[in-house]
Amino acid sequence: MATTTVSRTFGSDNHAGIHSAVLDALAAANSGDAVAYGEDEISKAAIARLCRAAGASQGYLVFNGTGANVLALSLLLRPHEAVICAESSHLNVDECGAPERVLGCKLLAVSTPDGKLTPDLVATKLNGVGDEHRAQPRVIQIAQATELGTCYSLAELRELREFGRSHGLLLYLDGARIANAVASLDCSLADIAACTDVLSFGGTKNGALGVEAVLVMADGQAASAKYLRKQIMQLASKMRFLAAQIDALLDEDRWLVGARHANAAARQLAEALTTVPGVRIAYPVESNGVFTEVTRRLADRLLQDWNIQVWSETPDNSVILRWMTAFDTAEEDVAELAAAIGRAAKTQTHDSSARSS
Amino acid sequence: MATTTVSRTFGSDNHAGIHSAVLDALAAANSGDAVAYGEDEISKAAIARLCRAAGASQGYLVFNGTGANVLALSLLLRPHEAVICAESSHLNVDECGAPERVLGCKLLAVSTPDGKLTPDLVATKLNGVGDEHRAQPRVIQIAQATELGTCYSLAELRELREFGRSHGLLLYLDGARIANAVASLDCSLADIAACTDVLSFGGTKNGALGVEAVLVMADGQAASAKYLRKQIMQLASKMRFLAAQIDALLDEDRWLVGARHANAAARQLAEALTTVPGVRIAYPVESNGVFTEVTRRLADRLLQDWNIQVWSETPDNSVILRWMTAFDTAEEDVAELAAAIGRAAKTQTHDSSARSS
Amino acid sequence: MATTTVSRTFGSDNHAGIHSAVLDALAAANSGDAVAYGEDEISKAAIARLCRAAGASQGYLVFNGTGANVLALSLLLRPHEAVICAESSHLNVDECGAPERVLGCKLLAVSTPDGKLTPDLVATKLNGVGDEHRAQPRVIQIAQATELGTCYSLAELRELREFGRSHGLLLYLDGARIANAVASLDCSLADIAACTDVLSFGGTKNGALGVEAVLVMADGQAASAKYLRKQIMQLASKMRFLAAQIDALLDEDRWLVGARHANAAARQLAEALTTVPGVRIAYPVESNGVFTEVTRRLADRLLQDWNIQVWSETPDNSVILRWMTAFDTAEEDVAELAAAIGRAAKTQTHDSSARSS
Amino acid sequence: MATTTVSRTFGSDNHAGIHSAVLDALAAANSGDAVAYGEDEISKAAIARLCRAAGASQGYLVFNGTGANVLALSLLLRPHEAVICAESSHLNVDECGAPERVLGCKLLAVSTPDGKLTPDLVATKLNGVGDEHRAQPRVIQIAQATELGTCYSLAELRELREFGRSHGLLLYLDGARIANAVASLDCSLADIAACTDVLSFGGTKNGALGVEAVLVMADGQAASAKYLRKQIMQLASKMRFLAAQIDALLDEDRWLVGARHANAAARQLAEALTTVPGVRIAYPVESNGVFTEVTRRLADRLLQDWNIQVWSETPDNSVILRWMTAFDTAEEDVAELAAAIGRAAKTQTHDSSARSS
Repeated sequence: MATTTVSRTFGSDNHAGIHSAVLDALAAANSGDAVAYGEDEISKAAIARLCRAAGASQGYLVFNGTGANVLALSLLLRPHEAVICAESSHLNVDECGAPERVLGCKLLAVSTPDGKLTPDLVATKLNGVGDEHRAQPRVIQIAQATELGTCYSLAELRELREFGRSHGLLLYLDGARIANAVASLDCSLADIAACTDVLSFGGTKNGALGVEAVLVMADGQAASAKYLRKQIMQLASKMRFLAAQIDALLDEDRWLVGARHANAAARQLAEALTTVPGVRIAYPVESNGVFTEVTRRLADRLLQDWNIQVWSETPDNSVILRWMTAFDTAEEDVAELAAAIGRAAKTQTHDSSARSS
Repeated sequence: MATTTVSRTFGSDNHAGIHSAVLDALAAANSGDAVAYGEDEISKAAIARLCRAAGASQGYLVFNGTGANVLALSLLLRPHEAVICAESSHLNVDECGAPERVLGCKLLAVSTPDGKLTPDLVATKLNGVGDEHRAQPRVIQIAQATELGTCYSLAELRELREFGRSHGLLLYLDGARIANAVASLDCSLADIAACTDVLSFGGTKNGALGVEAVLVMADGQAASAKYLRKQIMQLASKMRFLAAQIDALLDEDRWLVGARHANAAARQLAEALTTVPGVRIAYPVESNGVFTEVTRRLADRLLQDWNIQVWSETPDNSVILRWMTAFDTAEEDVAELAAAIGRAAKTQTHDSSARSS
Repeated sequence: MATTTVSRTFGSDNHAGIHSAVLDALAAANSGDAVAYGEDEISKAAIARLCRAAGASQGYLVFNGTGANVLALSLLLRPHEAVICAESSHLNVDECGAPERVLGCKLLAVSTPDGKLTPDLVATKLNGVGDEHRAQPRVIQIAQATELGTCYSLAELRELREFGRSHGLLLYLDGARIANAVASLDCSLADIAACTDVLSFGGTKNGALGVEAVLVMADGQAASAKYLRKQIMQLASKMRFLAAQIDALLDEDRWLVGARHANAAARQLAEALTTVPGVRIAYPVESNGVFTEVTRRLADRLLQDWNIQVWSETPDNSVILRWMTAFDTAEEDVAELAAAIGRAAKTQTHDSSARSS
Repeated sequence: MATTTVSRTFGSDNHAGIHSAVLDALAAANSGDAVAYGEDEISKAAIARLCRAAGASQGYLVFNGTGANVLALSLLLRPHEAVICAESSHLNVDECGAPERVLGCKLLAVSTPDGKLTPDLVATKLNGVGDEHRAQPRVIQIAQATELGTCYSLAELRELREFGRSHGLLLYLDGARIANAVASLDCSLADIAACTDVLSFGGTKNGALGVEAVLVMADGQAASAKYLRKQIMQLASKMRFLAAQIDALLDEDRWLVGARHANAAARQLAEALTTVPGVRIAYPVESNGVFTEVTRRLADRLLQDWNIQVWSETPDNSVILRWMTAFDTAEEDVAELAAAIGRAAKTQTHDSSARSS
């Protein structure tokens, strides 16, 4: 099962394919010529529709999550300004330094227990305000859901928002998995969006071929957006085919239905693992990821069979593995995975007993 | 006809839709999970196939032409090095300053009569070599076909290549329309590629939804490529769906068939316009673009009905309009366009006569 | 005389040494501790004094001209914005691409007959305004005096300023040789400064050890200046010693006295050369540079003896040489230089005659 | 004593003035014209002399420490590469994000107990090697002496060097206070330099007006250095006056004599404070800085009288204050300071007693 094309990997939500309705929408949009770069009717309508759903004033489609993060931040930052983010954030860890390279900005990364910033944690990075030797904090960056699968409650978002406002800080929310957060909180997209200045809305991890949107809540931030999107290489010429994906996800609330499904699969997995000895659920399962803490030996065993990520290693030499579900994860696949982990854990326990005896 | 979704605009080859075989390939690739970021079998196979066709050692798929240009140049440049390019090049004119912003490099733009660099023109930018006050020329950048629809002959490419080598200059070829050039020269992709250090291979303007490839001819240049692609936000997670587009274009030589078709449509248009008074073909029609020089009045008239680009204005106040054909331009559409231009030219001539009488 | 330390080179105004009053001021400022980074009394007073002289609201001392140019532009530009400048400008030619590298901005360089922009020349770069594919013009950059030794009249400056304002363009004036321009126009520093949004005031080419000032006319532009200066590595820790240089130049109008002296020396040289056959003065001598057009043979001869710059080559294969005077150029040195050029020209004419006979 | 020009501040070693021999050297270098940008004899000789002392192959003078750090790193990094450094390093904390802005690189900052990296600490940042989503570690950056006043032993440097080599990491040493380290270790400059690939040699904090050198140990790293120095705005035109400062510091080992003096003053202070109740020396005093941990109340009291830095706050709400000595700190000044701290501590203790009674 370590080959590269498989039925269900649990390695990432972007191992999943495309929702069939998205494919249908691509075919439907493929009718005759359309002006490029988003001036066509399909693009305008899809953006307007997504903005309405989020209560946003403007929206910009981009190719991927890194592009969304960089474009969003470029709307909010001057070169000497810095971004406060969680140490474990995708922005800090998994963009190959794109924010530093393309924006030239400093990330002020804060260690967190669960991937979530709090006013107190943000405050630890504010001691250089006004000092010309320090990059000046300007943006609080959070992800919802976080890289650790946790979600901010609406109250937590609002508190962070208020704290930011009172300290002259803007708030950018990386919504690569915002659908999972909306599903988890049972709120609306607009409820979350209202706590931000700019947010992204992820399609790719939720059934699209590849599209993300940067949504701007207040008009003031967006004056340069169209130029910046082009300049950072995120302007699609055949934009209608990005827009059609968004449309298909909004139709029949597919974005939300898919996220609910993925979240339920994650909960199913977590529950099944509760009874497996030697497997500890490392973070609250509040979206579509399950992080299991296991011994290094069990990890090595599981990594032989599953193309998943070693998320981190703990100081006491155990290992955290990440299992992701998606919009199309089948109940049986989860059951099979849970059983396989159970077997591996049992064998390993047995081995240990044998050896120690 | 100035609306945004129309049957045939001639405004750009990226107004065209997706080749049906490309859509089919997307659907075919949508089978179960696949590992992300290009480690799946579809991606590996498509890249290998394209590299074989070009004689390249490595290939990297990206989202769009700006991304391809920036990634390619980032493989060849250190921060103090400059790129010699045509003043009319897409790189210089139409990237919203992406090379300067993302690469931090200086473009040494040379005025050309037909969009094509020559050794003599390149030589005009070499006078600061070794002077620490000058950005140091390192790359000759050309497009094939050029932004003006012209093509370098293989002899011209080789001459430029040799000149570059003898002056320590690498050669990057922007191949957003390389298919049209291959069709026009009746050569192979490898014939052109062999004259370069790095080139791009365009899919988007030739029937794809959105994909370009950066092809590296010599191993040495590519050590950092995978990181740089990610860092400049051009790494697709669901890579198989970019690769499937390339595959579909390579199948049955669709990339070449489509380009030949587009080129033929451009020649058809140019020939039909030969007899239209007041319309001059501004540049040799060597790919899929026809540039017509007309009076400002005729231009204004045509711009009312057609969503095309005013390419430039000439010193004597006439205007150059650009008409682009695509892989799917119908013969009747070209005939209709030629007739419409003919009618507009006639009316305008008539108006002028009336007025001057 | 091709050695590196010589009595008078005419190679550049920065071949000159330090005005003795500047050295005295350094010694005078060297009294006990002073807080760093400009918070000391000497720094505050010198900046305030210079701001008063220019009618500026804020001032920032930096190390050199490249630093001044980059800091000034960084106050005025967002990343997608471009600078319109003369093709021959120091900014475009002699900064080793610092604006592109550090600011990430595109320079829209315009060919000029005499190094000076005009509204008509600026207008040629405005055709992409509003087009997301084009870097957006935001700043008109000029030098006063220009790299070719010419000066804008106050009327020309005002016209450029008005044109800029009516097109949403800010004006930055590179004043590395602004003293020479003030001397040449017989106006005040404030007269010139009033036509700009930001300007630099050069000390280094005019008797300082090394200091330039960035002066901001309107408060709005300067909010980020102190951070940006630090970030682009132009914040001196022992700032009082930069400030003391400015102070010494302002005392007794030394900056202006020195510039008048240098300008007079240039005029003296130009007049002496009027009668030399085979030497043509290439540009109006309006500051402290004399540009002579000579045959290549005469150029080669002069380059053997003088450590000067070949400024450019003309299409008909003659060569333009640059001779610079400084605040401390002696009348006898100029006379000696003129005589030496005369002798070389004579020999060369003789050689030519001999050869052609 | 909170005014800005004072006899002895202890606020920073750059509050100190210029060594009189440096001023004399400036005057001596001010004799006639000299070619600019370092091609003069004074500059060549001073650089050669410093390179000999360090065993370096090439040297480049720059204006300040930020410039030295950025130039040095630019010789060693490609855009996707990262720097491993101490969280408390000047590079990470006090450059206003210059490395991120100008180099576009990511800093991988490691928490340290004493400002010093170890192989084990460096190893914690190597887990993303080979992963395209992570900026790739390439340089270990250390300061000697560190920002906390501690010094690496030669054995520690060599161990770090070896560890780096075995992991493909280069070593850059920020030597803004390398003189203090040489004095502290009683070794040679070359002993330290031999453990690095590139290092800086600080003049400014040690009696110069303003000059630092970037020294390159291996030829390979320096091919682009002259261009990069110009591009990052660190090329002085009147270079001889930077070189003369280096010369004056090397004459009679003034750089080392001054550093020894400063280190002795720091030790004198630390010893005097040993007996003061409520004052704890926070880090080993191994160069010219003394870090005292005191209660917030005592800190507030001392900050009223002394223009010093609050270095940090500890979790238990006490405060660390930094006291810096310089090449010209007088023994009596140290004695007076120690006495003043003693009085303040006493009063505060008394107040506390009074209040608590």
